[in-house]
Amino acid sequence: MQTCELRIDAAWVVPIEPAGALTGHAVLVDAGRIVAVLPRAEANDRFESRSHLEFPHHVLLPGLINAHTHAAMSLFRGIADDLRLDVWLEQHIWPREGRFVDETFVYDGARLAAAEMLRGGVTCCNDMYFFPEASARAFLDLGLRAMLGVAILDLPTAYAADAGGYLARGLAVRDALKHEPTLSFSLAPHAPYTVGNATWEKVVVYARQLDLPVQTHLAETAHEVSASRDVHGRSPLSRLHELGATGPQFIAIHAVHVDDDDMALLAAHGCHVVHCPVSNMKLGCGIAPAAALVQRGVNVALGSDGAASNNRLDVFSEMRIAALLAKASTGDPSAWPAQQALNAATLSGARALGLDAETGSLVPGKQADMITVDLSGSAAEPCYDPVSHLVYAVGREAVTDVWVAGRRIVDSRVLQTADEAAIGAAARLWQERLK
Amino acid sequence: MQTCELRIDAAWVVPIEPAGALTGHAVLVDAGRIVAVLPRAEANDRFESRSHLEFPHHVLLPGLINAHTHAAMSLFRGIADDLRLDVWLEQHIWPREGRFVDETFVYDGARLAAAEMLRGGVTCCNDMYFFPEASARAFLDLGLRAMLGVAILDLPTAYAADAGGYLARGLAVRDALKHEPTLSFSLAPHAPYTVGNATWEKVVVYARQLDLPVQTHLAETAHEVSASRDVHGRSPLSRLHELGATGPQFIAIHAVHVDDDDMALLAAHGCHVVHCPVSNMKLGCGIAPAAALVQRGVNVALGSDGAASNNRLDVFSEMRIAALLAKASTGDPSAWPAQQALNAATLSGARALGLDAETGSLVPGKQADMITVDLSGSAAEPCYDPVSHLVYAVGREAVTDVWVAGRRIVDSRVLQTADEAAIGAAARLWQERLK
Repeated sequence: MQTCELRIDAAWVVPIEPAGALTGHAVLVDAGRIVAVLPRAEANDRFESRSHLEFPHHVLLPGLINAHTHAAMSLFRGIADDLRLDVWLEQHIWPREGRFVDETFVYDGARLAAAEMLRGGVTCCNDMYFFPEASARAFLDLGLRAMLGVAILDLPTAYAADAGGYLARGLAVRDALKHEPTLSFSLAPHAPYTVGNATWEKVVVYARQLDLPVQTHLAETAHEVSASRDVHGRSPLSRLHELGATGPQFIAIHAVHVDDDDMALLAAHGCHVVHCPVSNMKLGCGIAPAAALVQRGVNVALGSDGAASNNRLDVFSEMRIAALLAKASTGDPSAWPAQQALNAATLSGARALGLDAETGSLVPGKQADMITVDLSGSAAEPCYDPVSHLVYAVGREAVTDVWVAGRRIVDSRVLQTADEAAIGAAARLWQERLK
Repeated sequence: MQTCELRIDAAWVVPIEPAGALTGHAVLVDAGRIVAVLPRAEANDRFESRSHLEFPHHVLLPGLINAHTHAAMSLFRGIADDLRLDVWLEQHIWPREGRFVDETFVYDGARLAAAEMLRGGVTCCNDMYFFPEASARAFLDLGLRAMLGVAILDLPTAYAADAGGYLARGLAVRDALKHEPTLSFSLAPHAPYTVGNATWEKVVVYARQLDLPVQTHLAETAHEVSASRDVHGRSPLSRLHELGATGPQFIAIHAVHVDDDDMALLAAHGCHVVHCPVSNMKLGCGIAPAAALVQRGVNVALGSDGAASNNRLDVFSEMRIAALLAKASTGDPSAWPAQQALNAATLSGARALGLDAETGSLVPGKQADMITVDLSGSAAEPCYDPVSHLVYAVGREAVTDVWVAGRRIVDSRVLQTADEAAIGAAARLWQERLK
């Protein structure tokens, strides 16, 4: 008999690898990692566990991955909606960012975002914002796995004066925190249109030397693409490719306005796309060709973007709307079936962040990043297929328990690592200042 | 001092008429109807209430109206997804309907649907299915307000042999139940392509004689419209207009493929549209021109369609996705702002069903059809505008209490009129037979 810390029996186990749902199975965890996924009878014979949990109406699956967010912007949730993009940014978001964003703002905002994400079944996020040291502290305090983007701009902000300043500050944070097992880092030049060629070339060199992914907002609006063609004579992606940025460590966020040549480039170089359907819809940016990208073999993950443009950090919602939008935009109801949406929210997210050896599926050896989802109640009956229900019928409200690296962060819908009411109270204090 | 049964103080009251949110207000209810919406100090001075409830973190608003559903089809929830429309209907839905749909199926399915809708803040639905006597019994048992459609087809089913048979059976149900204060009736010819001219003419005569609304699935697919042009030389709507069906008692469900002429007809004759964005997306039917319809002055309500093609009966989700889809399809982020989405889910639904004198807003004299939505917790902080949060940030999971005609049907998230677990158990028995 092998001894392990934790055994979980759930009505269904959805491991992602392989596809589909297993019944009558148990998952065994030790030292924060998955030891086995196997039939209960076999678990009885082979394992002794110090703790044994049963989830009789639940699915056990990998935690979801929010592959693009600006966590601290949760303090701007709903501060300005239903506005033209330029009005929203220039009159509402940027003036407040200039005046209020500091380490305290980012810590309080990232803590609020981490609480929302963990309660909603997200076990890992990819964050991009100023003061990553403050976001990192919030994610460590609450126990959320995270990739932090070293934000880089050619414009001065309260955070840094120029590209060199952004890089120096961000890389110092990385040096200080790179030993943390639940944190990883990437370079995050904001966008092709806010970062010039010289800085992009520097980013490419640093990324190779430090073995870091590069993530950027790409082709979010039609205007961005036409301006790039006017100024640079080529699409934003084609320009970045010329500058050496493409490759399996390149993460293109949004990719709404990519044409056939762009898609061929993304596929040929093993780049990743983070599809943010709700943010793209809410800002009227357009509809990313998510079905065509998957068809060409591009790895497509899902992101919520910031709560200022969503207004949720809810990967269940992104899954469902990605599946619906793929069908609506192609006229093909078989586009993005439920399993594809679930893969995008889990293993594809891990692949995009270069973390697929560690998370994204319930496979022995990986970190025990897992959630349980309750499929009882009138909204989830009957249940012919739990994969369908995870995407189409239930949402984050059905998440009951969350583990990151085997640590139970949410227990019976209650966050264990912080006082959710105190986090809300801090957000209300910011509301008084920001409104 | 005036005495009344119930006083509710909520952090915010969103009455729909007028737009926006009121703080520091109370709502007074007596004999099932709203007596007053007024500042608390004034309520203290003028009213004595036998029961006084306080909702310190909640919005009080009118119950939502699901203006199109096939309630009993909830037993097919998730039985077949991600399939071409013809495969889905011909291989999965129709064979099972032919074999299993009877009074017991419809009662059990409608009860499940009513439980899901009530728990999710829906206080009124517009149902269209066979055996309306069984749906009616389920809605009466659970306390959900409903309009029942007298289904009419020119094809034989287990329910009736021809149009005359459908009409006779349906109108007998109406005669038996028309005294029920929470039930109303309409004529529901299935669609232009399944009901011939002679039957449509008969429907128009009955509707006038009995003063009943007429509802039909209209222009759901591009194929329906092109086939109508081939066979009848005109669009489906134009054909129904020629047959005398249009007018303020005509409810066009879906209206995905309506052109400028169709929209002008709908507007000129005061017809109503029920927009079902999720069902249209999931079946790959297309995107209804909801923004253009509203711009032309057409009253646009929201519907979930049946759970077989959604897979939720969730009007919060329809609100949010309608607002997002209007922006995505027009490229205009100011299309369908939050208040428009909320109006569509409440007062516009009541107008479409001819019930706006009775429900759809918190106005003195109307039925007390109301819900409370909890805006505390990390997913809803901070709150700059509760109307924005109702549409973009929270969902049906935040509904805590539901009243229909002043009767508290859901109390602190628990259904009071039936045992939700027993309803789920009945659904699981059907699952064994249907799968």
